[in-house]
This record gives sequence, structure tokens and C-alpha cells, in this order.
Amino acid sequence: MSQINEMKDGDEFVGFYLIKESEVKQTNTTPPKDFMNITLSDASGQVPAKLWDATESDKELFKALSLVKVQGIVQLYREKLQVKINRIRKANAADGVELTDFVRAAPAEPETLVARIRAAAAEIADAEVRTIVAYCLDKAGDRLLHSPAAKSHHHAYYAGLAYHIVRMLELGDFICAQRPFLNADLVKAGIILHDIAKPEEMVSELGIVSDYSNAGKLIGHISLASLWIAEAAFKSGIDPDSERVMALQHLVLSHHNLGEWGSPVQPQIAEAVALHYIDSLDAKLQMIEDALESTASREDWTPQIRGLENKAFYRMKL
Amino acid sequence: MSQINEMKDGDEFVGFYLIKESEVKQTNTTPPKDFMNITLSDASGQVPAKLWDATESDKELFKALSLVKVQGIVQLYREKLQVKINRIRKANAADGVELTDFVRAAPAEPETLVARIRAAAAEIADAEVRTIVAYCLDKAGDRLLHSPAAKSHHHAYYAGLAYHIVRMLELGDFICAQRPFLNADLVKAGIILHDIAKPEEMVSELGIVSDYSNAGKLIGHISLASLWIAEAAFKSGIDPDSERVMALQHLVLSHHNLGEWGSPVQPQIAEAVALHYIDSLDAKLQMIEDALESTASREDWTPQIRGLENKAFYRMKL
Amino acid sequence: MSQINEMKDGDEFVGFYLIKESEVKQTNTTPPKDFMNITLSDASGQVPAKLWDATESDKELFKALSLVKVQGIVQLYREKLQVKINRIRKANAADGVELTDFVRAAPAEPETLVARIRAAAAEIADAEVRTIVAYCLDKAGDRLLHSPAAKSHHHAYYAGLAYHIVRMLELGDFICAQRPFLNADLVKAGIILHDIAKPEEMVSELGIVSDYSNAGKLIGHISLASLWIAEAAFKSGIDPDSERVMALQHLVLSHHNLGEWGSPVQPQIAEAVALHYIDSLDAKLQMIEDALESTASREDWTPQIRGLENKAFYRMKL
Amino acid sequence: MSQINEMKDGDEFVGFYLIKESEVKQTNTTPPKDFMNITLSDASGQVPAKLWDATESDKELFKALSLVKVQGIVQLYREKLQVKINRIRKANAADGVELTDFVRAAPAEPETLVARIRAAAAEIADAEVRTIVAYCLDKAGDRLLHSPAAKSHHHAYYAGLAYHIVRMLELGDFICAQRPFLNADLVKAGIILHDIAKPEEMVSELGIVSDYSNAGKLIGHISLASLWIAEAAFKSGIDPDSERVMALQHLVLSHHNLGEWGSPVQPQIAEAVALHYIDSLDAKLQMIEDALESTASREDWTPQIRGLENKAFYRMKL
Amino acid sequence: MSQINEMKDGDEFVGFYLIKESEVKQTNTTPPKDFMNITLSDASGQVPAKLWDATESDKELFKALSLVKVQGIVQLYREKLQVKINRIRKANAADGVELTDFVRAAPAEPETLVARIRAAAAEIADAEVRTIVAYCLDKAGDRLLHSPAAKSHHHAYYAGLAYHIVRMLELGDFICAQRPFLNADLVKAGIILHDIAKPEEMVSELGIVSDYSNAGKLIGHISLASLWIAEAAFKSGIDPDSERVMALQHLVLSHHNLGEWGSPVQPQIAEAVALHYIDSLDAKLQMIEDALESTASREDWTPQIRGLENKAFYRMKL
Amino acid sequence: MSQINEMKDGDEFVGFYLIKESEVKQTNTTPPKDFMNITLSDASGQVPAKLWDATESDKELFKALSLVKVQGIVQLYREKLQVKINRIRKANAADGVELTDFVRAAPAEPETLVARIRAAAAEIADAEVRTIVAYCLDKAGDRLLHSPAAKSHHHAYYAGLAYHIVRMLELGDFICAQRPFLNADLVKAGIILHDIAKPEEMVSELGIVSDYSNAGKLIGHISLASLWIAEAAFKSGIDPDSERVMALQHLVLSHHNLGEWGSPVQPQIAEAVALHYIDSLDAKLQMIEDALESTASREDWTPQIRGLENKAFYRMKL
Repeated sequence: MSQINEMKDGDEFVGFYLIKESEVKQTNTTPPKDFMNITLSDASGQVPAKLWDATESDKELFKALSLVKVQGIVQLYREKLQVKINRIRKANAADGVELTDFVRAAPAEPETLVARIRAAAAEIADAEVRTIVAYCLDKAGDRLLHSPAAKSHHHAYYAGLAYHIVRMLELGDFICAQRPFLNADLVKAGIILHDIAKPEEMVSELGIVSDYSNAGKLIGHISLASLWIAEAAFKSGIDPDSERVMALQHLVLSHHNLGEWGSPVQPQIAEAVALHYIDSLDAKLQMIEDALESTASREDWTPQIRGLENKAFYRMKL
Repeated sequence: MSQINEMKDGDEFVGFYLIKESEVKQTNTTPPKDFMNITLSDASGQVPAKLWDATESDKELFKALSLVKVQGIVQLYREKLQVKINRIRKANAADGVELTDFVRAAPAEPETLVARIRAAAAEIADAEVRTIVAYCLDKAGDRLLHSPAAKSHHHAYYAGLAYHIVRMLELGDFICAQRPFLNADLVKAGIILHDIAKPEEMVSELGIVSDYSNAGKLIGHISLASLWIAEAAFKSGIDPDSERVMALQHLVLSHHNLGEWGSPVQPQIAEAVALHYIDSLDAKLQMIEDALESTASREDWTPQIRGLENKAFYRMKL
Repeated sequence: MSQINEMKDGDEFVGFYLIKESEVKQTNTTPPKDFMNITLSDASGQVPAKLWDATESDKELFKALSLVKVQGIVQLYREKLQVKINRIRKANAADGVELTDFVRAAPAEPETLVARIRAAAAEIADAEVRTIVAYCLDKAGDRLLHSPAAKSHHHAYYAGLAYHIVRMLELGDFICAQRPFLNADLVKAGIILHDIAKPEEMVSELGIVSDYSNAGKLIGHISLASLWIAEAAFKSGIDPDSERVMALQHLVLSHHNLGEWGSPVQPQIAEAVALHYIDSLDAKLQMIEDALESTASREDWTPQIRGLENKAFYRMKL
Repeated sequence: MSQINEMKDGDEFVGFYLIKESEVKQTNTTPPKDFMNITLSDASGQVPAKLWDATESDKELFKALSLVKVQGIVQLYREKLQVKINRIRKANAADGVELTDFVRAAPAEPETLVARIRAAAAEIADAEVRTIVAYCLDKAGDRLLHSPAAKSHHHAYYAGLAYHIVRMLELGDFICAQRPFLNADLVKAGIILHDIAKPEEMVSELGIVSDYSNAGKLIGHISLASLWIAEAAFKSGIDPDSERVMALQHLVLSHHNLGEWGSPVQPQIAEAVALHYIDSLDAKLQMIEDALESTASREDWTPQIRGLENKAFYRMKL
Repeated sequence: MSQINEMKDGDEFVGFYLIKESEVKQTNTTPPKDFMNITLSDASGQVPAKLWDATESDKELFKALSLVKVQGIVQLYREKLQVKINRIRKANAADGVELTDFVRAAPAEPETLVARIRAAAAEIADAEVRTIVAYCLDKAGDRLLHSPAAKSHHHAYYAGLAYHIVRMLELGDFICAQRPFLNADLVKAGIILHDIAKPEEMVSELGIVSDYSNAGKLIGHISLASLWIAEAAFKSGIDPDSERVMALQHLVLSHHNLGEWGSPVQPQIAEAVALHYIDSLDAKLQMIEDALESTASREDWTPQIRGLENKAFYRMKL
Repeated sequence: MSQINEMKDGDEFVGFYLIKESEVKQTNTTPPKDFMNITLSDASGQVPAKLWDATESDKELFKALSLVKVQGIVQLYREKLQVKINRIRKANAADGVELTDFVRAAPAEPETLVARIRAAAAEIADAEVRTIVAYCLDKAGDRLLHSPAAKSHHHAYYAGLAYHIVRMLELGDFICAQRPFLNADLVKAGIILHDIAKPEEMVSELGIVSDYSNAGKLIGHISLASLWIAEAAFKSGIDPDSERVMALQHLVLSHHNLGEWGSPVQPQIAEAVALHYIDSLDAKLQMIEDALESTASREDWTPQIRGLENKAFYRMKL
């Protein structure tokens, strides 16, 4: 079985893959014929494929998120690899393959990641802050096991959100140790809560976002998280106007730093500034790390990265 | 008794005034002496005044928001009128003057304004929307009788907020009649709720804002109003995820139109666009109307107005 | 005869339609063959169509703005409806169809709209302002009966400009009644004149703009309108430096509010601010109303609208 | 008689000077006393002066634009030179001094400058363009002999506008010779007309601008110049819609290059781009040359210059 | 032999051309076939061409920068001219054609241009400045004979950089004559050095830029030129901290005027402002001149030009 | 001896202080008298003071950076503490006080800080990178012991630059451990070099910046550091065009992230992004920590901080 990032021109192969995207197109012949553009993927990467002379049954069967067995040939076409599909069928129980084996995912088990988040939440000293964080984690629930952190911006894969939070918690611990004037409870809570409503903002399956929800568009994950905190306070009998609830609201609302980036207020407590920069640092470095990994090692430059001033990144040879 | 906007150079006068601002300064003589810069105001306008050789008792007595009786003389100083205070004392019960007579206020009784808002709220056809609006009006409570709409931007006077809402409701009714595709309930609710948390954002007395509250700075009136709506839903047993609650949240959150103006989401329903422009139209025209009124009629140009691209406005002579 | 907004997958139909756009393309076969992409439209909407194996005669006959009789079939292709044309011919006198019946138009008779504008112009109290407005209406002449208000931004259809002016006049009357300090003559004149040179800025037929004129590009409709006012004053013996002509010039020049939106000066009289916001309110709400109407009722969201921060709009289900 | 730019600490002097600005201030003594802050100027520069214990007569006599005889002493005060006035009186006929000798002025006779502009205008080959330019020069009339090019931005002195035009004409001739594809008539005409309405935009005497006119604020010199061109065409029987009039309008309207700098349209003919850069080059270099000249030669850096990104400029020692 | 800018619909021709760009595409037939999109160019312009049924040998032979002999026919396709290639072969020695005859180039011999730059450099009076300029010219070396000034922005052709420098030197001489306060040595040196590292920033052949170099992307031509100056000083024993080296560094570093245009410091000496505007004036006017030349004379408007606010330019008919 | 941050209204005290700023002003009495505004400081903070009736000798003696003995009284004046100086003299050898005891400084010994930077530099694995870093540290020399990191933006005190570097190195180590794909040598080198030319950009004594140097203004610390790296390579025989020198140049040049913040290129290697965010995180949090410390503990809000979107920061009470 052939891993996608190891394919090269001329390879003939048989293997199982996940269809990530699929569309029907028509040739310009008279009469026109249908063919399919299919994006095959596995945990190592993805490659475009063509299925010529697609039947009605093909169009019905080979939709996005299907697991399929493919026999094909790899061709170099306009300097990029492309697969010509000769045979294709849906995977079945007898094949003994699992969908999740073919999905791009954070480099750690979702359960482990969520457990570490839960453990950090449990370490929060202030009882009311701890209660609110726990409530919001419960509300996110199982969605935290698979939700990506964004549609394509950063950590856009299975359990990407949980992975992002865990790495930020590590960085947060370091910063709080380096600067004891920071309130470690607030830094922890801010990290866990800042994107906690992302699973409600986006519609995703297997870490692949297909759309934003109506609430995601009309309210946005920042204000949704603020509403979750209010709900947590109401349901737990915590004074919604208390200093600590105000602090949590402020952390969530200000974490995009500027109005034009979606924050209705700007950071005005030290922990909010820390949160914003911890978030940026983790997101930006992950974008580059992921881009370098999914760029063929023979290439010096990654594609341009939107979240980094639309710059391509150079693979230093040192 | 001399009304401030009728004073002219050389007038000697006795009258009652409200101290709007007051500060102690020192002369550069050796030894330096204390004097006071006092802003006298009445319902018609305001004028700077000097109290030379201020005693400790003066400094204690003549603070902001005091009502005083003044005997003074009007002088033209560097092309502007200024009062030299000869005698001054605090007003007392025997004087029979009321603080509120000296305060700049909306051109309608606060009770009448609030009654009109209540009446509009009662006309909302949708029961849940009506319930939420009523809850928020109750939460604003008596503060709505006196709260200004802003610190200095627009409608910055006694009952300014209520007056702003009433005028917007009139305009909203017209627009909804002109364009039946708009949901009149949402337009009404959006107008009443959009600035409903302003009294919590600002600390004001007699329509004069002395500061922003901590919640005002850290959360802001837009997100505070969003939290009020959530509270209203919780307390009234209304589904917080329903279409109508989402619509109310969206109206409030988007009414500043752009991120850089404080809205975390941009308008994405027709009623939100209507709300934004009704708000702008009423606020901007009021700013000009107020500026023209408080500019001496012999002046062709008002001072520059910050909320209008920092432009001065011309008094057309047609 | 089948109305376009009622077509559904599988329909076979015969009907008359207006060709809104038409282009010849080539298949990639060897040798390549010509086919045509044609946009069919009627008053209810528009739909893309394909005419395969187009002959030289087809290419000559079926150009934009032709009225044609089509026999075809509706197909769902990549989630959108598309027509396959089986037979097509130009409409002729015997068919008894009128081009204008197939054109998207303002929801009122052009003659009625222009009559209402003329009536409003006649109500202007100031004789010189009235004379200038009348002169400019005469100069616009019959073009006002059909000119759209913009190429695609808003009111981009037959008589769209006149409709925009009429609705703004209604709103202007309301605002002037609500705020008597405004000069109603100037508001009326500003509304009628603000876009009066649009027909000179754009080349349009049947409300469809094909291009901007040279003067439109090099001078722009704002400065053109300013020149019309000057011409009106010269021809009518009115002092071009008078207060009222200066006011009219200012209204027209400042109505886009900001330099980056094309206004060489910013509003500095109250009526100019009113004009700008009345214009915005009417244009923006019309964009949304039109977008919701031409979006299939089964869709929750309109396409993105450029003039509204490029946001899609939600069809609230209340 | 002491020239201002040669004054140094401790000098006692007697001389004639022009009062450029004058204001009355009060000491903080009890009772306060009046003194005057007077800006003395001559053709070489300006210096602040103090007249203590000012009498009513002093306040009446020593206003801006008066020519006075002063006996005073130069003092270094907080690192800057300042004059203490001991005696002062108005200059009279017997003194044999001329106001214009004390005014900062372009380094050439106004009559010579205007003659050169007239000569360049007469060289325009196209009769209609030549007629329009001549008309506008006549309309500017004698104001061109003294008008500055701006209030403070650049060429802000007696005959500054004419000097600016003359130097631009020299540069324009060079560019047209270097690039024959440019239409030299249009370049000449654009240079002469681009700021021709400045004298109508600003109220100035002796090259000192005291204010902007109402038309200057509400219409602006760019649109005013456009109206002058239209007037020229009307009065001279030239078709206002002709290619050449359109070109002149475009040159004037676009010469600030961007909307945010006041141009309603952007340059779209080569000559308009040339005009914009010739204008910028001349204005910017003149600002620096003037700043270096009026900065004491012992200073390495000029004050910050607003029109040059608010940068100070360095006097290179090469 | 047919010159490209003289081709018209229906022409059959045989001639030699340079392939500027070349790509292989596939038809949508089953099985798909390869064809080639080739851009043919000569010194007069360029035209798209199609080579159907491309063989493996075709794909190998007809790459960018090949000189070929073509027999073809000109067709009007969607309002643009296009060539259908019937026969094509590589040019050979016997054909007696030179690659450079087919390349778009500056309108002067490269050797002449470089000689004029060398001559100007030799005229620099200050020995150290002259030495540094000479060192950098040597370092640029023969690359100056062919390097374009930019990838596509301006002077994007053979010897474009040298031509740009020569024309700027002419303009610089004029400005220095007009304004003697400018240091002519610095203006000359600034003009020669400002883009001197462009050949290191870009990878080009025959004036056609295929890519930016790694150093070009990571350091940029502005900082590279600064490093060349430092190297020149080190190698020539000139004090790197001297006033004149600082001046040269400043000229190069500030010549893009603003941070967002790539300059780490803003102009703070007069010569730097002169340099920036001389550079802009020459680049912008050349862009328009080139666009007008390569636009068919029957077209009134050029395509949009990115470096000029993305505006199209009008060919005035005067 | 009274520490400044412990002074309160009414205190009479004698103590030694550093004069941070000093200016002579004049009273408005006739004749005017001189007095001095002096800023007294010690390691705990600073307070304004007045010395009335200043003699010529006072004006000569009590300049900035003098160490003085003061007998005075603390007064509350307009809500702020101020000292009235009764007696003042210069400190002398017999007083046994050290200037450096009165200076605001980083919370660690300069020698320790520099030793830690040296140690980190010695750990760099790559010999050439290590050589260049060592060269630049040598060039900065003793200035690193006292130089602040900025004039007022952040770390604006004695040894502030060294402290900033040390804390960034700690954070850099953590990030490199967390993300092994980063090149730790480059991160270390980037941190040490990014502001290494600050001591050449600013003129400072005792950590107090009095001005920017000419090279600081005309070249800027970013390009100066780039030139230091080039010098290091030349002097050490390292290839200036090698991958590693290019990487160091890129790190320094891009560390302000955006052109408008002074970087001529944007980060295009992962380590450059890490460097920018480590720099921001350390600078921003230090600004807040310092502001909270120097704000009286009874105040809830710090003054506005320019480097943090001009926001004041809230002292959370948790």
C-alpha cells in the first residue's frame, strides 16, 4: 500500500484512501461526458485524482469523506503529481481499515490531549473560575476530541483545537513561572476558554470543516464563548458581575487584540496580553511547521501562508 | 437673572448656576496663590469663570455639580467671553432653585420618553422578543430616565439616551412602512436594545458622565447588552439558541457595523443594516443640531465635531 | 411559458427570453468546436444556458440584448440549474412580445417615478434652487426614464436611478418633518441632483450598463453634476457665487462623505450629512432586498454583497 | 538696523519690523496684568517678542500686519532667542520704510513671475486650451501677484503661488523635452491651472493666510478650478464636452492623485501623472530648502516638516 | 516575415519568434490529448498561440526562451488575436537570426547606457563617494548590460535598469541645476546606487525575470545595496561611519519613501527626497509610455496598470 | 532618607536624589522671575519639584543627571504629589552616595546579565554564527552594561537592553525545546543580535536616553545591526553570501515584522517568526509589569501605555 507523500511519477499502486473532496465535471466534447475530480488523502498528505467516464453510480458513491480502495497510476502533469484512477470501490468491513487512520490529525491522541486540558482545568486554584472552566469544557463535550482550531488558518485538522490548547498551556506555564505577577489561574482559564466555542461556530467532521454555522456567522465564536461563561455562572450560582467573571469575559472578548481582528474590546489586563501573544505564537509557528512538513522536501519554499502576511517560508539548509 | 447664552461683554449680573467643572490652579507669583477655574452652566449653555484668591473653604465648597449663586462681571478676553466672580455662595433651600433646572437635557420630559419606549416595546408582536425587551428595560430601570447616550459624542445630556431611542423608533417605523420586507419587531427591538447597557458602561450623574465603569472598559456596552439578552432568556425560560434570540444578539453585536468601531460581527441581516444606519443618521444629525444651537448665532461655523470627521459645520444663510 | 425563477430540474419548456450576456467558447476537442454560453433572463431572474455546436449564423444572431424564443431542458449541474438549448430563434413582430417585458426593472412605471421627481422639484420654495434643479432634470431628460443607479452596486436595473431618487425623497420628507432645523429645499435638491449625472457617467441600454463613458472615467459623476449646476446657473442668469449655488455644489460634491469614496470635500452642512445617510440607507437596504428576492427561497443565505462589506445576508425565519 | 536671522543673545538693537502675529495675555498676579506676545518678522525670518504691561492703546495699535519701530534686547530663554521690547511705535510716512520690504517673499519679483507664467500660457499651441488658460489667469488677476501657494504647507509666502508655478513650468519643459509622447500644451496648462483657484480658497494678505473662505471649505480649490474652466468655456464659446476641455478638467481634478488627498478622480492620462509628480517634487524640495534656510546654521536638524511624513531634515556636512 | 504588432485576423504567415512562455495542457476528451499554449514574442510585442496534438518531442523542444520558426494563421478569438500554429521548428545557425533581435529592450544600446552611467560616476567630485560608486558598478558588472529594473512593475525589459538610471541622471542634473542647494554628488550617487542590487535580487535572462533569488526574498535589494556600500568602504579603506557613507546608506535605504513600501527609514536629507521623486516620476511615466505603445493604436484605453493605482490610461486624441 | 514611592502629603524630608530632568521657567509677574521645574528621582520612582526664585548659580548647578541633597516638603497639588524644595545642594564625595544607586535599573546586576548573554552566545553550535555573534557583542562592548532597550517604549532603564535579551533567551530556550524543528542556534543568535545596535542608535547615560544619534535617525538600529553582521563576516573571513549569514541578516532585518514598523523584509523563516513574537511578548508584558509597579497601589488603572494600543491597564483584584 502506497503512502501519498511517497508517490512518484510512474508508480502503479493499489491502496486505501479517504476522499477529502469530490466534484463532477463535464468534458467539452459533443455530447459532453462526466468525469470526477477527486482529492485522495491519507495521514501523510493528499493528491488530486481523475476518474474518467464517471457513471451515475460513481457519482453517487464517491463523495467526500468516503473510504475507498483505488488502483491507479501516478503521473507528472504540469510539474505536479496526479493520479489516474483505473479501478475504485468503497471500502467495506472485510477490508479491516478504519476511517480515522486516513485522517490528518494532531500528533497526539485526542483522549490524551483532552485529559491534559482537564487536568490543567482541575489545577485552577480559584473555585469559581474552576467551576466555570469545567462547565464550558462539559458543554464543548466530545466535540473537543475531534474539532479543528480553524477551517484552514491553523491547526486545521482532527483534534487540532485540543492540541492547540495543550501547547498553549505549556507555554502559559512557562510564562507564569517567568513572570510571577501574572495570575496563573486566569492565564490557564483564558487559554482553555478562548476558542472553546469554535466547535459551535464551525460544522466539522473528522477535523474537516465544511461550513460555518448560522450562530458562527451571526454571533461568532468570541461572543459565543462569552455567552457560555454567562451560562456557566447562571447555572452554577456564581455572581455574573463579580471581578473574576468580568476577568474571564475580558480574556475571551479581547483575545484577538484588535477590533479589525474581531475583538470588541482590547486587552486591558496583563493576562489578556499574555493570552493574545501565546495564542499567536503557537498558531503561527504551527502553521509554518505544518507547511514545511507537507511541502515536498525537495522544495526550498512552502506555498504562501495567508495567516503570515501571505509570505512563503524558506527551508533553511543549516 | 442672566441666561448664559445671552451674556455679553461688560454685563454685571447676579444669578444661579450649576458648576459643571472646577479646578484649583496656582499663580506664578512668589509665593504662588491659589485661584479657581470654574465652568458655570445652565440649560442654555456654559461659560468659563475665574475665582481669584481662593480660600480653603472655597476649594472645598465649589466642586463640580454644585448649585451656586454668583455675582460677577462678563469680560471679553482673547475674543471669548469669561466671567470674573466677585461673590459666590452655595444655593440653599430658601433659594427655591432646583438642580435639574440648570442641567442640559433632552427637549422632552424623561418620563414621557420612557413611556414612549415602553409603549413601543409593548407593541412588539412576537411574545418572546417582547419579553426579552421588557426584561432589559426593567434592568436598565430608572437609569433610562437620566442617562446620556454618550460621554461627549452625541446626545451627551440628561435623558439623552431615551431621547435617542425615541427618535430612532420614529424613523424605524417609517422605514418599516416603506419597506415591508423588514421585520418590524426586530427593528423595534434592535433600536431599544442597541445601547441599553450604556448606563452600565458609564458612570453619570445629571446626564454628565464622569467616567467609564470597569465593566464598561473591560467588556463594553455592546457585549454587556448581549449578556443582558442572555440573562433575559435564562430568567424567562426562552431558548437561548432560538432563531429570535440569535437575531437579537446579532442586532446588538453588529450595530457599530465594523470591527474597528467595536462590533465583533458585521451586519448580516437586513434589520441590522437598517439599525446601524438609523442609529448613525439620528446621532450625526443631533450632533450638528446641538452644535448649531450652542454656537453663538453670530458665528457662521460651529467648532469642529469629532464624530463627523472632525469637521466644523456651516450655518447656511438661506 | 416558463418563468425563470420557477424553473426546476428536468423541466422541458418553450418560452421567450432576453439574452443578457453571450459569449462564444471552444471545446478542447481536436479539432475544437464552438459553443455558446448564453445568459437567458426575464423579469423574474436569469439562468445560464448552453448552445452546443454553434454555427456562424448563431454567433451572429444571438448577441446580448436580443429577444429570443427558446425550446430547452433544465438540468441540475454542480448544484446549480442550467439550460440546455435545443432550439432557438430570434423573436419577431408576429410573436407579439415586447423587449421591455423581459427586463428587470424598478417596481414602478418609469413615467410615474419621473413625474414624482418632477413634482417634488416643483415644490421647492426657493426660486433659484428650483430653477437649477429643473434645468438639470431637463438635461438628464429621457435618460432618467431608464437609467440604472449603478453598474452593479445598487439599483442596477431599468429606471433604478429614478426609483432610488423617489424613495430617498420620501425618506427626506420624513427627516425634514422630524427635524425642522433642516432646510427642506436643500434636502430635496440634494436628493434629486446627487446622482443626476450618472446617465452621463455610464453607457447603458435597458438598464444594463455596458461601460463607463470617457467623461465618466476622467471626470466622474460627482464633478459632472457640479458642472451641470454651474451650467444651469450660467444659462439661467443665477449668480454662481451665491450662497444657494454654493450649497448645491457642496451637497453634490460631498455626498460620498469621504475622499476615499470619491468626494473632494466632506459634508459641512447638516443637509449634506442628511443626504449622505439617506443615500446610504436607501442603497444598502435595496441591495439586500434585491439579493433576497433573487436568491431562491430555499436558500438561507444570499451571495456575498460587495457594497455591504462583502457579507452574505441571512434570511431570518421569524 | 538689525536683521532678525543675525540676532544673537545680548544684542541691543533698534529697527523696523512687521508684526506677523499678536495676542494679549494676562499674568497670574493679583490683580492680573496684560502683556503682549508679538511675533516680529522681516524678510530674513521671525522672532518672538514680549511687551510687558501693555496699555489699552498698545493693544489697539500693535496688531498683526502693522509695521513698527522697536527698541529692544535679545535674550536667550530656554535655548531660544526672544526679544524684550523696551520701546515700540508704529512706523510712519517719514520713516521711509515699505511694508513689502519686511515680508517673506518668493526670491523673484511678482511681476516677473506672473509675466513668465503669461508668456508660457501664450506659447500654448492649441487655441482653445490657450483661451481657457488665459481666461483663468485673468480671473485670478492681481491676486496671483501676492497669493501664497498654501497656508503653511509649502510656498507659504508672498507670491509663493506664482513662484511655484514658474518652477513647475521649468521642470515641465524639461520632462516634455525628455519624453516627446507627452502633450506639452496639456502639461503647461495643467501646471498653470492646477492651483489657480487657491486665491479664492484662502483669505490672505501680504502672503499671510488668515483663514479659508467659505467657498474654500465647502467646494475646495480643486473643484473651484474645475468650475473656472467651465466658466471659461461658456464665456468663450468653447464646447464644454470637447476632448480638450475634458482633459483640462481631468488634470485639475486628479492632481492630488488620491481620493484621501482630495482628488475625486485619479490620474488616467500621462500628463496628469506628470503634473502630480512635478507638483510634488517642487513642493517637497521647496519645503526642505525653506526649512534649512530658516533654521539657524548652527543647528544640524530642521524642525519636523508636516508635509514630509513629519520628519526633521538633516543638514549634511559635505 | 510578419511583425507581431502588425498581425490581423486571417493573416497567414511564416516567421521567426521568441517563445516567452510555454505550457502543456490537456483536452477534456477521452482519452485526453496534450496541446501547448505558447506565447510568441518579438521586439514589437507578443501574441498567444496554440499548438494542437503536441508530441513528446514538441514538449521537450519548445520551451521558454527558444527561438523558433513558425508557419501559422492569425484568428480572432473572443475579440483577441490568437495564432494557430501549423508548423514549428527550432531556429538554427543557418537561419542567421539572433536571439537578441527578438527581445523587448530599452530604446538604446546597453553599452551606450552603461557608458553614460560610468561617465556620470566619474564626474562625482568627492573622491570617496566616487570610489564607492565605482566599486558597486564593478560589482554589478555585466549584469547591468541586460538586467531589467523590475519583474513587471516598470522598465521590465532588456537593459531596463540601465535605461532607468540614465534617464534619472538626466532629470537629476536638471533638478540640481535648478536647485543649487542640493549636493549634486549625492544625487548622482543615489541615482546610480538606488537599484544597483536589483540584478542580485532577481534571476533574469534576456531581460525576462523568471524568479527572485533567495537573497532577494530574504534580504531585499534595498538592504543588499546597503551591504554593497559597506563592502565598498571596507575594501577601499573608507571610514564606514563617515558622514558621506552615512549619506549614501541613507539614500539607498530611504528611496522607497515609506515603511510599507520597503524602506526601513524615511528620507531625512533633501537629496533623498529628490531621489525618491525622480525615481517615481521616471518609473511611472515609463509605465504609461510602454503601456500606450504596446496597446493597439485602435484602443482608447490601456489595460489597468498595477503601479498606478490599478488605473487604465486614456489615449488623448489631441 | 525618604524613598520617593513612599512620600505622602505633608511629609517634610531630607534626602539624596538624582535630577532626571530640569528646566528654567519664568513667572508672569512684572518683572518676571525665574524658577525651576525639577524632576527628582530615585530607584523607586520620580516626583516633580519646584525651586522658586532660582539664582544664576542654581540654573548652572542643578542640571539633568546631577546628584543632589534636598530638604523639602511634599504637597498634594491638583490630586498629584509635588515637592517644594526649601534647600538644595550638589552631593559631594563626603556624602558617600553613588549615582547608580539612584537610577532606575533592571532587576539584576548588569555584569550578571551580560555574562548570561555571553554564555548563551558561547553555546551556539555553529562556529561561524558563534563568531559573528561574539564579534557583535564585542562591538557593543561595555555599552551593553547600561544601555536601555528603548527611549521610553519598553525596558527604558539602566541595563534594560541586557535584561530584555536575557529574558528572551529563556523564552527562546523553552520554545526551541517545545518545537525541535526550530534551529536553536538561529533563535539564540537572532535574540542576541536583534537590538544589538540600539546603543549606537540612541545617546544614553545611566539608562536615560537624551536623543537619537544621527546614524540612528538616518540608518536606524535595524540596518545598523545588518551592517555590523557584514562587518563581522568581513573581519572574520566568513563568506558574506553564505546561507548562515543570509539567515542572520534576515532575522535582524525582519524582526519588526511589518514594513510600517520598520522592517524592510517580512519574516520568511520560522525562526524569524519565533523571534518577532518572543520579542513582542517580552516587551509588552514588561511594559505592563513596569506600569503596574510604578503606579501607586491605590490606583486601579495604570496610565495609558503607548505601545499597547494606548490602553490603560487594570489591576485585577483576585
